Amino acid sequence: MTVAPAARINALPGAREQLLEATSQLMREGDVIDISLAELSVRSGLNSALVKYYFGNKAGLLKALLDRDWQAIVTSVDALVHKEDWDAETKMRRHISKVVDTFFAVPYLNPLTLRMVRESSESEARRIADCYLAPMYRAYESMIGEGVRQGLFRAIDPQLFYFTVTGAVDRFFAARLVLKHCFDQDTLTERHRDRYREHVIDIIMAGILAR
Amino acid sequence: MTVAPAARINALPGAREQLLEATSQLMREGDVIDISLAELSVRSGLNSALVKYYFGNKAGLLKALLDRDWQAIVTSVDALVHKEDWDAETKMRRHISKVVDTFFAVPYLNPLTLRMVRESSESEARRIADCYLAPMYRAYESMIGEGVRQGLFRAIDPQLFYFTVTGAVDRFFAARLVLKHCFDQDTLTERHRDRYREHVIDIIMAGILAR
Repeated sequence: MTVAPAARINALPGAREQLLEATSQLMREGDVIDISLAELSVRSGLNSALVKYYFGNKAGLLKALLDRDWQAIVTSVDALVHKEDWDAETKMRRHISKVVDTFFAVPYLNPLTLRMVRESSESEARRIADCYLAPMYRAYESMIGEGVRQGLFRAIDPQLFYFTVTGAVDRFFAARLVLKHCFDQDTLTERHRDRYREHVIDIIMAGILAR
Repeated sequence: MTVAPAARINALPGAREQLLEATSQLMREGDVIDISLAELSVRSGLNSALVKYYFGNKAGLLKALLDRDWQAIVTSVDALVHKEDWDAETKMRRHISKVVDTFFAVPYLNPLTLRMVRESSESEARRIADCYLAPMYRAYESMIGEGVRQGLFRAIDPQLFYFTVTGAVDRFFAARLVLKHCFDQDTLTERHRDRYREHVIDIIMAGILAR
């Protein structure tokens, strides 16, 4: 592909979002973080010079994808925490269900986050922590505190609980290869997702509900 | 370093185990799977030609480490499953406690396993699944089946439960960087391990015990 003039590149409507979505799809399908600009160009049908135009370089593209996916999560968790008419148990069930959906849709998000934190400058790592991880932690603190006050939950540590929930879900979706070789299941279907959602909500809610 | 003659290399007592242990330490400390033979030589104090001698190449070294760590786990789980005088609840509590210890000692094991499965031939991937993953799954099936028969556990899916347990623990130890930037905790100490052990046993046992 040849490099199009900047003026023409500028004019493409939706190209930025298209590049992000194509990146997301490639990571999800390949179960990898490392994608090539050549692959991305083929998948998106867009000139790879657009990556430079919109994101500066590949690191910028990955950062924009991280921002896209995390912003959706943080906004949704924030709305959930502030639902005045739901009790803490309802909120937590809905939240875990959403975490399962999220890891099904963007299974690369945890590895991508860890990698960006590892490979970024101290200030960018801090930004990721402040913008995405800290709000999640505060949401857990709020939901669990509420549940304890309402007499619904046992008093558990929100930070450790956050690791328990995301870990339990993350591992399942990171483990497609294990599923394949160990259980002869070649792909992770929506049926798997629904079965796992039910299982994980069942175990974790039983784990935190006051008797 | 110069390459020592094979006869002399052959004579080094414990060198094979020393190389494996140094590899394990480097992965644990650096939170990485990719270590260089130069680093390994410095850490072990051994000539890196010994890697070729004992393991053929770096892939062989990684395979031997995977075997070393998994064999210890499978042997220990097998002994636990066959403890005649323990009920299923005691077994499961002890098992989860051991999983926490294992991921604390060898936090690279899950990423290493996934990578070896991904990068190996079909037959080697199958061997890993058969020798290490399938026995774990069968142990879960046995312990949970026993617990249900003893009226101690609810009937839950052993395969999904296996993902829940290992995920909940794995994520915690894979997330040192998150701890650092999000919670200002620079290292993962034995105190963290003990706190998390207590938390995860508490949540998961409450999740599976029959009411």
